[in-house]
Amino acid sequence: MSLSEEQRCEIQQQQSDTFSTRRSVVPELEEILYKPFPVLDHGFVRVIDYMGDDAAVVQAARVSYGKGTKKITEDKGLINYLMRHRHSTPFEMCEIKFHIKLPMFVARQWIRHRTANVNEYSARYSILDKEFYIPAPEHLAAQSNTNRQGRDQILEGDYAQQVLDLLRGDAEQTYKHYEFLLNEEEKDPSRPGLARELARMNLPVNFYTQWYWKIDLHNLMHFLSLRADPHAQYEIRAYADVMLNILKQWVPFTYEAFMDYRVGATHLSAKGLKVIKELLKGHPVNQVQSGMSAREWRELMEILGQDL
Amino acid sequence: MSLSEEQRCEIQQQQSDTFSTRRSVVPELEEILYKPFPVLDHGFVRVIDYMGDDAAVVQAARVSYGKGTKKITEDKGLINYLMRHRHSTPFEMCEIKFHIKLPMFVARQWIRHRTANVNEYSARYSILDKEFYIPAPEHLAAQSNTNRQGRDQILEGDYAQQVLDLLRGDAEQTYKHYEFLLNEEEKDPSRPGLARELARMNLPVNFYTQWYWKIDLHNLMHFLSLRADPHAQYEIRAYADVMLNILKQWVPFTYEAFMDYRVGATHLSAKGLKVIKELLKGHPVNQVQSGMSAREWRELMEILGQDL
Amino acid sequence: MSLSEEQRCEIQQQQSDTFSTRRSVVPELEEILYKPFPVLDHGFVRVIDYMGDDAAVVQAARVSYGKGTKKITEDKGLINYLMRHRHSTPFEMCEIKFHIKLPMFVARQWIRHRTANVNEYSARYSILDKEFYIPAPEHLAAQSNTNRQGRDQILEGDYAQQVLDLLRGDAEQTYKHYEFLLNEEEKDPSRPGLARELARMNLPVNFYTQWYWKIDLHNLMHFLSLRADPHAQYEIRAYADVMLNILKQWVPFTYEAFMDYRVGATHLSAKGLKVIKELLKGHPVNQVQSGMSAREWRELMEILGQDL
Amino acid sequence: MSLSEEQRCEIQQQQSDTFSTRRSVVPELEEILYKPFPVLDHGFVRVIDYMGDDAAVVQAARVSYGKGTKKITEDKGLINYLMRHRHSTPFEMCEIKFHIKLPMFVARQWIRHRTANVNEYSARYSILDKEFYIPAPEHLAAQSNTNRQGRDQILEGDYAQQVLDLLRGDAEQTYKHYEFLLNEEEKDPSRPGLARELARMNLPVNFYTQWYWKIDLHNLMHFLSLRADPHAQYEIRAYADVMLNILKQWVPFTYEAFMDYRVGATHLSAKGLKVIKELLKGHPVNQVQSGMSAREWRELMEILGQDL
Repeated sequence: MSLSEEQRCEIQQQQSDTFSTRRSVVPELEEILYKPFPVLDHGFVRVIDYMGDDAAVVQAARVSYGKGTKKITEDKGLINYLMRHRHSTPFEMCEIKFHIKLPMFVARQWIRHRTANVNEYSARYSILDKEFYIPAPEHLAAQSNTNRQGRDQILEGDYAQQVLDLLRGDAEQTYKHYEFLLNEEEKDPSRPGLARELARMNLPVNFYTQWYWKIDLHNLMHFLSLRADPHAQYEIRAYADVMLNILKQWVPFTYEAFMDYRVGATHLSAKGLKVIKELLKGHPVNQVQSGMSAREWRELMEILGQDL
Repeated sequence: MSLSEEQRCEIQQQQSDTFSTRRSVVPELEEILYKPFPVLDHGFVRVIDYMGDDAAVVQAARVSYGKGTKKITEDKGLINYLMRHRHSTPFEMCEIKFHIKLPMFVARQWIRHRTANVNEYSARYSILDKEFYIPAPEHLAAQSNTNRQGRDQILEGDYAQQVLDLLRGDAEQTYKHYEFLLNEEEKDPSRPGLARELARMNLPVNFYTQWYWKIDLHNLMHFLSLRADPHAQYEIRAYADVMLNILKQWVPFTYEAFMDYRVGATHLSAKGLKVIKELLKGHPVNQVQSGMSAREWRELMEILGQDL
Repeated sequence: MSLSEEQRCEIQQQQSDTFSTRRSVVPELEEILYKPFPVLDHGFVRVIDYMGDDAAVVQAARVSYGKGTKKITEDKGLINYLMRHRHSTPFEMCEIKFHIKLPMFVARQWIRHRTANVNEYSARYSILDKEFYIPAPEHLAAQSNTNRQGRDQILEGDYAQQVLDLLRGDAEQTYKHYEFLLNEEEKDPSRPGLARELARMNLPVNFYTQWYWKIDLHNLMHFLSLRADPHAQYEIRAYADVMLNILKQWVPFTYEAFMDYRVGATHLSAKGLKVIKELLKGHPVNQVQSGMSAREWRELMEILGQDL
Repeated sequence: MSLSEEQRCEIQQQQSDTFSTRRSVVPELEEILYKPFPVLDHGFVRVIDYMGDDAAVVQAARVSYGKGTKKITEDKGLINYLMRHRHSTPFEMCEIKFHIKLPMFVARQWIRHRTANVNEYSARYSILDKEFYIPAPEHLAAQSNTNRQGRDQILEGDYAQQVLDLLRGDAEQTYKHYEFLLNEEEKDPSRPGLARELARMNLPVNFYTQWYWKIDLHNLMHFLSLRADPHAQYEIRAYADVMLNILKQWVPFTYEAFMDYRVGATHLSAKGLKVIKELLKGHPVNQVQSGMSAREWRELMEILGQDL
């Protein structure tokens, strides 16, 4: 993560101001407000603002006149109940706003979540920095043979270096040409610069962009349950993991329920449930009897940690 | 507006607590936080929480590392520009949460705005209070003959009284029966109470419900532009008017731009624009020449304050 | 369900016209197009239009130039895979439009699903028919003592009759007054009718309204998974059950996957999964050891059909 | 636009099949169903499916049991009225599905419209074709000096050629390296190919992607009003213009109202309206008196075609 001196100053300025408010406040989150958490080689996640806390979930669920909280154990039990029974609207009553710097190919996956508010840095209007993503050696992986959208073993040695050099070389060259096309401040006064909205088309999708991204707690958890998942591409998961930690600071009860009922949870099909019931009765079942496909059966056995 | 002693206490408790925060704060809004503003005979609007201010609109539009604000006039100019050119995403970066008490027929219009978060008091689960809307005499109006969804002259004298008595009488009776059906705390131990989710079906839509309602600034303005409009039914407009005042406290620059470019603004069709251009050249135009329908022509002349 | 002669004619007219199209067509759904399926005492569900079929899900998932279908078993396998791994976007590529008549208290639950398009009959503009919901005797149930939003035993005998009479009486009276207030066609020429938008406030929420409701297949399934569920109020479940049958006619492969992975499926928390793994190893576990609350434990045991 | 032989065949197959339906049908749109309309150098827009027509707007607005249409002039008048008064929900009752091929930098602007359904070709899973956008000479424009997100004069002569060569050269080279990284079918058996989800990061945003995109009529018009606008970047406007023509085939009455009340229409601020009223009275007004900023004043004078 590379911040300019000016950017560091601006962030410090924000962190040093404090104000008085009657709104609910989360001291743990205040602690890390505005702070850039590094992700990948040049990216970051910063919390810019938030609304509500665990108590606000409870307050809305109870449609109360005051804070709406009761005993800690009751509030926690209610949050667990809401999560378990997928009562999502009380979790929509909390909101969080991030400033995020991320490669464009990650941004293209991310934006598929339509329930957030977004303001992206405009390359029609402004000039992109020379910052591009090059995978760390331990993330430079071969195509998986079994999973068409997965990775396999790590590339090594000279070949790995060749791949990295090639990625870096193309990024350097396309950015050099981007600068030539822009001809900012008419360095070469003999020609006009190409329109910014056109020049940017020369940049690969590993270049970084940034945006303000605001979302409610329910939809944030939906995003995290999909993107902090092993099926997600490593590069977006790296962001989700950082945000999971932020979630824990912000709404610890909700976080705990989320880890239990979503992240660590599993979904059983009607057929899968039937298999388990038989097994618990001591009746052996095999794939054919289960009515499941080979793939489904394998997935179920993995979930159960069985070697049947 | 009738609050119980307990409700008053809970509200006062919220108002008296203050905390320290690094987030942006709007002192004018803090002043009225949690306060119930009366609407109609038993309704109210309370601000429960908010995120952001005018500066947050500017900050997101500029995707800045710090506060993102420059000179006041520049920030104001940018907000005007964003409003004028319908750049809506920066306004989505602010959020506000209300607690609202409102008649069910108003709630049914309100809920049509789908871009908000809602937690409504559940009459499946809880018992509705005996609170119903009876129009003030000055709002008891006859059906309009020209506008099928409008009102006309105010009812007067004995007839007005008869109408009010009838509305009140039915509300009283249906609520008495609601209580009979519920048979709460088995007042009559000889019979079980009807399920709450069934008993409530006996109540007319002038009974009050309440909800927590959270929305971003852009969508709030869209709601207000439709509901603070003369075409809206008076009863929902009464809420929108109160919320317009809250908007003014919260984001004064945005409010000013909103009043200029939305509330007080007008939309001209291609044909309407052509008429104006002709008129400005000193060429008289009539309805037939304009290609507009009689109704459109009348609407245009009203907008222009013309008597052509 | 009571249709006027004119309404029957209009429906028959629609059913008798046929046209030629190059779009994909579902013969089983064409068969029941426009047909009103009765629900409750006066309600109905009619399919008005649809877009796509099972093949359209596959086509979009494959982003194909043609139909995109392969062998039936492959298409079915793909649909199962998409459902299992919550890849929801291909299911959003199908759309269905309904005309629905339903009591207002059901409409108020229904409208909470915000991802649909709605046009409701306007009681500001038009006059509501004299149609209200009175539960069939077998659905007239007492309040549950264990579940605050549930029902218990069926009311019987004279008491049941008294309840029904009371509901019917209030509906009859409030509608009579509604008609008095409207004074349509100035039956009583001595007084103006009250504005429609006001008069309607006298009607209880068991009166019927109607709307056009359009939704994509993914969000329809989300609606059905919540509303065809035993936790949903019977009156909305009655609609969901009819729509489940329509789903089966429309997209049979998707329906089958939906029944297996959603309706008949179950969700296991991390703690619940751990309990099952222990049980499968032959290790007895009790509630305290599981770390689950008493209620969670009971829910898990019910799911597993265990009596532990 | 370059289609493979197989793709042409698949499209022709779709076009040649016809079926019988009871749904409403638009013959003009059936005529062009599935047909790829070329956009830019390799892009296209194809209509894959649709639901509803002008009559369906009317039918939903009237919540009717049958087709809901009356006399043509009445239906047209109703559509005009709905458009003029921003009654958007009846227009949501029609739906259209496109297959679109477009450069990634256009896709990134496009996806900001969140109210559509999207299935994009996955470069995690599949391999992108060697197709990239190179502007036609007449669209190769210099950066505007007055509008930071606009274009100015066209580049010419050797310089233009140099720019095009540079764009083409980088696209060729990055794609060659993309292929090297993928090492598909292990052309070079001595090394594993890089994971597809990583290799794609080397491609610039002028490479083409494709997606299925489905949207309702109201939101399509919102998209078109923003993207068929002179402020939109030429490359996305080229798509919007093709889709405007499709709109005209599909819903001619709605199209006409849309052109009159949206595309050709203008929005007047409260201040702007006041200026016009003064001018119509023959009172000269200048910028300072108007209370408008210099920029607003200039925009107003342009709208009015005035030279004041």
